[in-house]
Amino acid sequence: MLDGPKVDVTHARRRGRGSPGDKGAPSRSPDYRQLRNSFLPQPVFSSDQVEAIHATALRVLEELGIKVLLPEARQVFKAAGCLVDEDTQMVRIGRDVVGAALLSAPRSIEAKAGDRARDIVFELGVMTFIAGCGAPNVTDLDRGRRAGNLADFEDLIRLVHSFDVMHMHGPCIEPQDVEMSLRHYATARAQLTLSDKFPFVFARGTPQTEDSFEMIRLARGLSVDEFHNGAHCYTVINTNSPRQLDIPMAQGIIDFAKAGQVSIITPFCLAGAMAPITVAGALTLQHAEALAGIVLAQLSRSGAPVIYGSFSSNVDMKSGAPAFGTPEHVKATLGAGQLARHLGLPWRAGGGSASNISDAQAAHETQFALWGSVLAGATVLIHAAGWLEGGLSVSFEKLITDIEALQTIAELFDKPGGGDADIGFDAIAEVQPGGHFFAAQHTMERYRTAFYEPLVADWSNFGNWTQSGSKTATERANGVWKKRLAEFVPPASAVATADVLDEFIARRTAEGGAAPVS
Amino acid sequence: MLDGPKVDVTHARRRGRGSPGDKGAPSRSPDYRQLRNSFLPQPVFSSDQVEAIHATALRVLEELGIKVLLPEARQVFKAAGCLVDEDTQMVRIGRDVVGAALLSAPRSIEAKAGDRARDIVFELGVMTFIAGCGAPNVTDLDRGRRAGNLADFEDLIRLVHSFDVMHMHGPCIEPQDVEMSLRHYATARAQLTLSDKFPFVFARGTPQTEDSFEMIRLARGLSVDEFHNGAHCYTVINTNSPRQLDIPMAQGIIDFAKAGQVSIITPFCLAGAMAPITVAGALTLQHAEALAGIVLAQLSRSGAPVIYGSFSSNVDMKSGAPAFGTPEHVKATLGAGQLARHLGLPWRAGGGSASNISDAQAAHETQFALWGSVLAGATVLIHAAGWLEGGLSVSFEKLITDIEALQTIAELFDKPGGGDADIGFDAIAEVQPGGHFFAAQHTMERYRTAFYEPLVADWSNFGNWTQSGSKTATERANGVWKKRLAEFVPPASAVATADVLDEFIARRTAEGGAAPVS
Repeated sequence: MLDGPKVDVTHARRRGRGSPGDKGAPSRSPDYRQLRNSFLPQPVFSSDQVEAIHATALRVLEELGIKVLLPEARQVFKAAGCLVDEDTQMVRIGRDVVGAALLSAPRSIEAKAGDRARDIVFELGVMTFIAGCGAPNVTDLDRGRRAGNLADFEDLIRLVHSFDVMHMHGPCIEPQDVEMSLRHYATARAQLTLSDKFPFVFARGTPQTEDSFEMIRLARGLSVDEFHNGAHCYTVINTNSPRQLDIPMAQGIIDFAKAGQVSIITPFCLAGAMAPITVAGALTLQHAEALAGIVLAQLSRSGAPVIYGSFSSNVDMKSGAPAFGTPEHVKATLGAGQLARHLGLPWRAGGGSASNISDAQAAHETQFALWGSVLAGATVLIHAAGWLEGGLSVSFEKLITDIEALQTIAELFDKPGGGDADIGFDAIAEVQPGGHFFAAQHTMERYRTAFYEPLVADWSNFGNWTQSGSKTATERANGVWKKRLAEFVPPASAVATADVLDEFIARRTAEGGAAPVS
Repeated sequence: MLDGPKVDVTHARRRGRGSPGDKGAPSRSPDYRQLRNSFLPQPVFSSDQVEAIHATALRVLEELGIKVLLPEARQVFKAAGCLVDEDTQMVRIGRDVVGAALLSAPRSIEAKAGDRARDIVFELGVMTFIAGCGAPNVTDLDRGRRAGNLADFEDLIRLVHSFDVMHMHGPCIEPQDVEMSLRHYATARAQLTLSDKFPFVFARGTPQTEDSFEMIRLARGLSVDEFHNGAHCYTVINTNSPRQLDIPMAQGIIDFAKAGQVSIITPFCLAGAMAPITVAGALTLQHAEALAGIVLAQLSRSGAPVIYGSFSSNVDMKSGAPAFGTPEHVKATLGAGQLARHLGLPWRAGGGSASNISDAQAAHETQFALWGSVLAGATVLIHAAGWLEGGLSVSFEKLITDIEALQTIAELFDKPGGGDADIGFDAIAEVQPGGHFFAAQHTMERYRTAFYEPLVADWSNFGNWTQSGSKTATERANGVWKKRLAEFVPPASAVATADVLDEFIARRTAEGGAAPVS
């Protein structure tokens, strides 16, 4: 066989000085909470081309403008000197206004979780992961594909909480069994009582936003002033590409900015559909729209925490179906990283897959999108785990297999040691030709912590694997998430917030809740 | 839904000026034959650390030495001034000898295929892919896992030939139904009559090697002198880590060097087992062993074409099972790239997966190993497609799903355009807010060739996918390889070599073939 066979080391180990194979040996406990990306960013454009895309985006905003549906937002732009046509709702933004916004937007944002050990800093060089978000459906091997519901939403919050490589919460699935005017109570309660990670709030109109902010203040024990002076939650703002900002999104930018909370401003630019068919063209439109949102945030409150957003991919030109993890998606993400570094702002990218099931396509597309984001230096990667069907479902099993990929990336951020002890001349001298290193002193000192221990990957040989039931990674992942849920214990500090939150929810429910209107 | 829904563009396209969705539209035909890697190499060690690993490897060769089982090889080393102990078979190689070998080893190797359009240049900056090699077993969805056999070997040669992103042949599976003394005729015949790509020859003793060289000369119409003055085939040499070179491998280095054919000299260093447990330690041993092989080749014929080989990964310390696509495998590959660039030589890396089936684990591990090789700047990636069980089987379906990943990488080497026409201000101006780009002039001019067209990925929505039978990527891949085989037509120039080869094989078979002895 080429490149050597699998080795049976049972015998080799028995002869050794110790027993590295002891199942009871203490294993490593890596820290995935605050990751810094050690990969060199990969450019796809020259710096002249980056400058040209930026300049063209400024020209788009100045000469063509963006349609802003919310009157309050048009008023904000107008007050800053932008040219507003009330008949067409078009807003043209001068480059001076954009330049001022880019000066006031913070380069670094300290995001406050429920526990200081869960805090995150959003800045270039940091990398954070969010599971698949916004799916109307949820799926797993036992129950199949079904409409999103609160019980599954809560289970996904539990799972996200239990993996350190998932750095904050997102609106994983839509709990469609809770009526719209009460849904935000349920989703905020789940995040705040089951976890102490940084929470997400949907920008679905001022009343819901205010309710959600109040729940966070109650859970965290913050006054309104304290809340406004720190970033305690975030939202995602999607522009309606091309060149349109709708009412809830514009309202969300204003509300979050005024409250000092984080907006991730993301045009969703599918090249060939809602954006030009070229990578550079899609990014130019994305850049213009993201800048318009950043301007609105900075005009609403100078210094408001905003994250530049990129989610540009392509569609299938035969059907119009969006695609993810494609060469064009990866190239767009790499280019977006260059634009974000040009601005100096923290930024988000988007992962995911268009596959309808957790299979080899799903894994390949997800990992391509992941590497695109890693090599682009994204600060935040949304839809990093579990996303199927281009966002129409979240899979419990794919969440687990994708988390293995995220943990692998987290391990890769840690460079291997290259000192004398790592190089190990003495270890090489100790083992004779044809021998083995299982029992070498150099091995014995390190074997407990030397290697990443897989979450779901099975490295056993074909015979043992067959005897264990010939399970695919997806089938094993089914067991992994069930075990995690069975063993889940929410943080005591989170559990302790339930009473005050329930009191608030009962009062607001009695008052009729809050419809998703601006 | 967060980040926007899937879009039905049927209606949108109908209103357009043209019909980008025409199924009959001519599609793009990308050229994957000669790939240059446009990614920046990613370092994991400082340049001081690289220098220290290199220096320690020299010290290993000089002070500890390597055990060389072949008397002829020890004689070659001795004649060059190395210290040889015939009792222990240990050879100690001075750094002067290593330095001279590194000066004579070529930085660039022109590999001659059966057609000039299939020629390859091996040098830093080039990237080439070889399918999974050396597996005793073969598997597919219809026939299950079975012992390697000639019919499957030939089908794999056909499949490899039919994808341009597979740049040369390898010993995909072991055709166990052909007896050992005749097997090399069957494998050479398959490569030479079904394909015009660069062929592989196993170094299983001088008689078999000479037979294989003669078949290549007959097929390519070369005299012995012409053959010796060009690289017309390659082999892979595995050292027996730690620090041992066995008889067939040493003989192979000598035979291939003397004939001017390519040796890829690859220690297979599993950290914690046959190599030190640290990445730096495994690479130090790998480097020493690869240098010893390179020295033997250069001493056998100065300027002999050699490729520096890396295949270092880790084992599961609980069972000793080798693992691939792990963080440690990727780190070792990135470090190996630094060592190869330190030498200035073309080099190979190794891909693959330890998974027992083509599933999400298999895809994730394979892609991690692939990215490791891409970001390390490997000249050749062996086991790039189809390899399962750490090399104990090759899967027809995984070959296809992995080729999609390789094609995606090939597309990524091509940077997106960043000129004015790509940025497309006029296209952005043409489409009004809330509109779409499907029918924009900018789109119409480009839609046929703008995007990568998937081989096996299915981007249809859940309803359509379900109606089509809810097939996984692996199930669809089954249809892809069958269609490729059904449509396969070997190159006429390859078919034309059958008569002369069969005449040779008949004669040699009558003579009893050639046993795998040195």
